[in-house]
Amino acid sequence: MAKSCYLYDVIVIGAGHAGTEAAAAAARLGAKTALLTTNLDTVGQMSCNPAIGGVAKGQIVREVDALGGLMGRAIDASGIQFRLLNCRKGPAMHSPRAQADKKAYQNHIKCQIEQQDNLHLRQETVVDLMTETIDGKTRVVGISVVGDAEYRAPTVILTTGTFLKAIMHTGDAKTSGGRAGEGTTTGISGALNRLGFEVERFKTGTPPRLNARSIDYSQLELQPGDDNPQPFSFMTGALDPLDQLPCHIAYTNDAVHELIRANLDRAPMYSGQINSRGPRYCPSIEDKVVRFADKDSHQLFLEPEGRQTEEVYVNGISTSLPRDVQDQMFRMIKGLEKAQIMRYGYAVEYDFCPPTQLWPHLESKSVDGLFLAGQINGTTGYEEAAGQGLIAGLNAARKVASQSPWTPTRDQAYIGVLVDDLVTAGTDEPYRMFTSRAEYRLLLRQDNADRRLTAAADELGLIDADRRQRFADKMTQIERAMECLKQARVDGTPGDVYLRRPEVDWETMCGHVEGLREIDQEAATQCLYDIKYEGYINRQKMEVEKHLRLAGKRIPQTFSYDAIGPLRQEAREKLNRVRPLNLDQAKRISGVTPADLALVLAHLERKKST
Amino acid sequence: MAKSCYLYDVIVIGAGHAGTEAAAAAARLGAKTALLTTNLDTVGQMSCNPAIGGVAKGQIVREVDALGGLMGRAIDASGIQFRLLNCRKGPAMHSPRAQADKKAYQNHIKCQIEQQDNLHLRQETVVDLMTETIDGKTRVVGISVVGDAEYRAPTVILTTGTFLKAIMHTGDAKTSGGRAGEGTTTGISGALNRLGFEVERFKTGTPPRLNARSIDYSQLELQPGDDNPQPFSFMTGALDPLDQLPCHIAYTNDAVHELIRANLDRAPMYSGQINSRGPRYCPSIEDKVVRFADKDSHQLFLEPEGRQTEEVYVNGISTSLPRDVQDQMFRMIKGLEKAQIMRYGYAVEYDFCPPTQLWPHLESKSVDGLFLAGQINGTTGYEEAAGQGLIAGLNAARKVASQSPWTPTRDQAYIGVLVDDLVTAGTDEPYRMFTSRAEYRLLLRQDNADRRLTAAADELGLIDADRRQRFADKMTQIERAMECLKQARVDGTPGDVYLRRPEVDWETMCGHVEGLREIDQEAATQCLYDIKYEGYINRQKMEVEKHLRLAGKRIPQTFSYDAIGPLRQEAREKLNRVRPLNLDQAKRISGVTPADLALVLAHLERKKST
Ligand SMILES: Cc1cc2nc3c(=O)[nH]c(=O)nc-3n(C[C@H](O)[C@H](O)[C@H](O)COP(=O)(O)OP(=O)(O)OC[C@H]3O[C@@H](n4cnc5c(N)ncnc54)[C@H](O)[C@@H]3O)c2cc1C
Ligand SMILES: Cc1cc2nc3c(=O)[nH]c(=O)nc-3n(C[C@H](O)[C@H](O)[C@H](O)COP(=O)(O)OP(=O)(O)OC[C@H]3O[C@@H](n4cnc5c(N)ncnc54)[C@H](O)[C@@H]3O)c2cc1C
Repeated sequence: MAKSCYLYDVIVIGAGHAGTEAAAAAARLGAKTALLTTNLDTVGQMSCNPAIGGVAKGQIVREVDALGGLMGRAIDASGIQFRLLNCRKGPAMHSPRAQADKKAYQNHIKCQIEQQDNLHLRQETVVDLMTETIDGKTRVVGISVVGDAEYRAPTVILTTGTFLKAIMHTGDAKTSGGRAGEGTTTGISGALNRLGFEVERFKTGTPPRLNARSIDYSQLELQPGDDNPQPFSFMTGALDPLDQLPCHIAYTNDAVHELIRANLDRAPMYSGQINSRGPRYCPSIEDKVVRFADKDSHQLFLEPEGRQTEEVYVNGISTSLPRDVQDQMFRMIKGLEKAQIMRYGYAVEYDFCPPTQLWPHLESKSVDGLFLAGQINGTTGYEEAAGQGLIAGLNAARKVASQSPWTPTRDQAYIGVLVDDLVTAGTDEPYRMFTSRAEYRLLLRQDNADRRLTAAADELGLIDADRRQRFADKMTQIERAMECLKQARVDGTPGDVYLRRPEVDWETMCGHVEGLREIDQEAATQCLYDIKYEGYINRQKMEVEKHLRLAGKRIPQTFSYDAIGPLRQEAREKLNRVRPLNLDQAKRISGVTPADLALVLAHLERKKST
Repeated sequence: MAKSCYLYDVIVIGAGHAGTEAAAAAARLGAKTALLTTNLDTVGQMSCNPAIGGVAKGQIVREVDALGGLMGRAIDASGIQFRLLNCRKGPAMHSPRAQADKKAYQNHIKCQIEQQDNLHLRQETVVDLMTETIDGKTRVVGISVVGDAEYRAPTVILTTGTFLKAIMHTGDAKTSGGRAGEGTTTGISGALNRLGFEVERFKTGTPPRLNARSIDYSQLELQPGDDNPQPFSFMTGALDPLDQLPCHIAYTNDAVHELIRANLDRAPMYSGQINSRGPRYCPSIEDKVVRFADKDSHQLFLEPEGRQTEEVYVNGISTSLPRDVQDQMFRMIKGLEKAQIMRYGYAVEYDFCPPTQLWPHLESKSVDGLFLAGQINGTTGYEEAAGQGLIAGLNAARKVASQSPWTPTRDQAYIGVLVDDLVTAGTDEPYRMFTSRAEYRLLLRQDNADRRLTAAADELGLIDADRRQRFADKMTQIERAMECLKQARVDGTPGDVYLRRPEVDWETMCGHVEGLREIDQEAATQCLYDIKYEGYINRQKMEVEKHLRLAGKRIPQTFSYDAIGPLRQEAREKLNRVRPLNLDQAKRISGVTPADLALVLAHLERKKST
């Protein structure tokens, strides 16, 4: 039997949100990349809500885009409603979110992948990881697929999402599969066990989908898109405000909650059938009813799944209650009394690998060349998956080219916060991003993702000439605006100083300062925030400086915590587990005290001086 | 445990091409219908080639449309290239065919289903059929699904296509599943066995898909769409000729054939791994190389899978050869040397039920209320599936309404030929339609499907007011044209007589006859053919008359062939198996001789006279 064998630089397993970004990033850097996925018809599929972005997540999408990723352009091309959340709050809180035409989104992602040079998208089911151990060091050498074939490469990126040993639950009915109608993946879980990976279980859930024709929209609140919809990608031109579809809002009520309470013993989460932890901030309706017992109503957002379908996603009512309860629930909700369920909600339990087993560039600490990204690292959300995918893909390609790893820092990107949180602290529940996780929120704004990342992306080779040019033009505009402001005198005050006054806005300044009206909206916003928030921004930058000094104290990978006699056992264990790259990261490990750090520092200095 | 139970009039299992038409037809007739399918994302999915229609198949689509079905409108909305095949031959051979944007086609079918009144589309995996036997008569009462729920209805339509006990083969690699990336259905096969159904196995196959960017189109022949693309649906207005994509043609060669011959022992079909019969007229490339050993080249059509994808379907190279042979094959084909395979070809073996177990309206003879339609009846092709689906759906709804079954006759529709062939003769290889199967080809033209069926459809309640009006308008136009022609004198000859002359065409007549130029193209065509082919048509109609007389001799279902002493054993067995509804159908049973028929007739008359 001639076994087929294909040679690549980078192999990506799974074409979800992590896998597609990983593969595209690796290929953009010139690595010969294979993206292997069970079914080409589910590339970039949204397992759950048909939406991209949201608070803190929208920021990640902007960063992925600034780094040349796919997600922003795909949602701009397939969005059916765009909203800037928190737009009444300060700019650090502004978060773009869009409803997607789910199928159009997938098609767009798949097509971008198909058009990427150096990238082969192939329908394959991966069954095993192949490794090689020499002198006690294990490295990945490839993978095998159904159909007696192998792919060989020095780097492999695992992004199988919720598919590892996945079990779906609706009431006490269980089926194996990572997504309704699809299968599960057992071979890879086996391989991870064999390779000594710690593997744990999480769960997540999805709400029922309804047929729009069975909804009484006259009873529901309307939620339209923004009048002035803003794209996610720095490369997208204006969006047409009229080309949007509305969402609607319904409410649960006491009767619904009563019904749920009466059936809690039949919910897999409460009956003991599911033990694993689910996403705290995306709770199921049964969870909400229990945890927020005093609330007598919860909002439900009715989101169309696309332009050419009547299917509607019911955001806010994720559930694994038995189907008869799901049926009854809707009958009690105003406007949904006659709602026809097209797909029932369910929960899914799956294997994930606690991410403290990874370096900050998402490579495994124990298996050289094996990267993990996405939900397999214990996160939840398309955006979190995409951000990680990009980092893993980029670093796999860099590894192949013998370049050192690159990861954005916590003050540079939410993606930096994400990856650092994961590898430093791990997670004991599905991790999702929040603005509160970022200590430098004011630096990590959605509007300035390109200013934070495009130059780095360019240096890394992630972006093309178009984007480079567009960014340069914008920077020129910002400088020009700043120049105009500084030159101008308003009431005898320099323009930039005058603009600092709380009551003065850009429009007012345009009346006073020549040349300002010609500045692009995007550049104007940058200029405005730079000036208005200068004080706060500078304070955060000073904070960053402090950390940078600590981060400058690098801890070599060969450093032995066991050699520090007086180190507390807890600190020793945690430091050994995380193996921080520098003192700043070490400081963020929970359970590591300043005294512990002082010991490590002393030891580091001593080693250096010897 | 409260088991959920849902009540319907008609339950359809599987939302492929048969299931969607079945459900839509039943719902159009007012039956409360549930369409249950494993995955809502695969509704109306094209398992294989992204095209609708073709020789004899295009005619079926036109008939499905005339009966108010979905297929015609869906392909008109999603077609990327339209061609009228055989357009240089006589009108009986004209066959419309179109390339589809595969995803857009699916979306369109799904959306039509979602918008249909009385129809609930639900994601469910059916695991068992529920029946009830009273006084030795078995009838279906419902089905059960994964998740401990039941659907109850007096009629159930089974349209699970290739999914029953399905096994996919590529070389010696086998996986279970009815379509790559999807699962298989075992419960229903079990139920069919339990109910005493004969179940046999067929196989079919699909070719590899390539990435367009890896194809050297400059080396291939161009195949554009028609300049004047014609829609499938009688309800569709004009199509835009410029809105089409080209296909391309490549050729296999001796080297490729040599390679295949050298690897025949590794082809599951020849290694003995697959024993079941595949579609003779849609052979795999290995089959072609063996059966047409003297041909040194076969055409391959490169068909885009859609507007927004680079995936290309390679029509003509269906194969289950091992992947290394598939890889090598393309390297030897001009223009495809660097082709990148995105999905490998494979064969699939599946259970089907020999269709002689059904009445002509597709209801089971042994289980009352259970209908079977589509590939499960041993056919192949989307169109054949759709045609059967419509008949089954229509008749399930009629059964619920206590109306007698309706099936088009052989002189009325290709669908009539299809169903009659299946239930009368069965099939020992996957059955596809050909014009040669129809003895009244000249009557069953693609252009007159509405004239053959719309009135019947209207009486059955299958069509809406729009279609009724449109058809009436067209008929008025035809009459008006005929009137104008008859009134007019050209060279002293009546217009209709003059038009019969071979050298005279419609355009010429328009010059001579007042009012003719105002006639719609479609109506003009009808008028022209009515006149030009009048002689042939009348001859076929006389043939039909003869058969109608025989068909008038109905055989009651209680009729006992065993009571006819002198009847030959073979005839007795076959008649008992098929249980023809009338003498005409009896005559078509192979192995039943005129002498046997005479005996049956004599016995029938005797019974009547007693
Ligand atoms: C039911 C459900 C509900 C969810 N609810 C929410 C929610 O409410 N909010 C939220 O933010 N997030 C939710 N999520 C999570 C969200 O879908 C994921 O975070 C996101 O899709 C993760 O992206 P990923 O790329 O890591 O994995 P996925 O998008 O799951 O992609 C994994 C890919 O790997 C492929 N694959 C699997 N095994 C193999 C194999 N052996 N060989 C080849 N390919 C393979 C799969 O086909 C798939 O393409 C939910 C997920 C599910 C399944
Ligand atoms: C690999 C392959 C190659 C083919 N090649 C050709 C070809 O070259 N030429 C040609 O003319 N035809 C070809 N065909 C055949 C063509 O696809 C079928 O004739 C056509 O799709 C049949 O339609 P159907 O409705 O009978 O079944 P399908 O289209 O197969 O639909 C069956 C439906 O049933 C659903 N289902 C299955 N089990 C269950 C369950 N337990 N519960 C609920 N739903 C269920 C499935 O999800 C699916 O939606 C091929 C088919 C396959 C799979």
